[in-house]
Amino acid sequence: MAASPESIRSTVESYIKAVASGTADDVLALYAEGATVEDPVGSPVRTTRESIREFYAIIEPLEQEAELVTLRIAANTAAFHFRLVTKMGDQTVEIAPIDIMEFDDAGRIVSMRAVWGPEDMIAG
Amino acid sequence: MAASPESIRSTVESYIKAVASGTADDVLALYAEGATVEDPVGSPVRTTRESIREFYAIIEPLEQEAELVTLRIAANTAAFHFRLVTKMGDQTVEIAPIDIMEFDDAGRIVSMRAVWGPEDMIAG
Repeated sequence: MAASPESIRSTVESYIKAVASGTADDVLALYAEGATVEDPVGSPVRTTRESIREFYAIIEPLEQEAELVTLRIAANTAAFHFRLVTKMGDQTVEIAPIDIMEFDDAGRIVSMRAVWGPEDMIAG
Repeated sequence: MAASPESIRSTVESYIKAVASGTADDVLALYAEGATVEDPVGSPVRTTRESIREFYAIIEPLEQEAELVTLRIAANTAAFHFRLVTKMGDQTVEIAPIDIMEFDDAGRIVSMRAVWGPEDMIAG
């Protein structure tokens, strides 16, 4: 049975929370075995758990706040616009991509593709 | 050479305008030969020009207004949240999906996948 919209929404909300204030392993726990990550779209696709952990480990120590702006769900796919604000001393850097995720029947992420460009990073 | 972000943005803006107030052929003109349409994601993929024209012909006679809310671009891919309001007498029906599009080097649409569910249609 395909993942329900409720199950997909729950994974997306957990993902945003884990990216902002969890560990890389908290994020990894939301991914299925064999999952892929392409962030941003057009960059090399990460296909191993180690390379995905490496990606999230970079932002693990940063002080961040995240907010879900818009979430749409259809079948096994979610697309969502979210805002991630990183504090660096007196400065902040905000990035607000639209992520595209596919999910397995248990609601785990099987692929993540993030759509954003350099112009979507805002220093404040 | 891949389509520039400016070229992709221009196609998305033309698409939204054509969906709201153009003809089915105006929309079709933005699609590359061999393009596919899956709206919503999970429904049968339209793979012929005839089936894609049929899809847009349904909404051609409706009185609609559309607005681009958020657009993100990476490489040959755009993801955008837009709002389409259809007037039906005294009533309106609003639908605001997130669409995912891929583009060829000339900035024409090669695939469109719309992410939305029944809960994203709002009668007003």
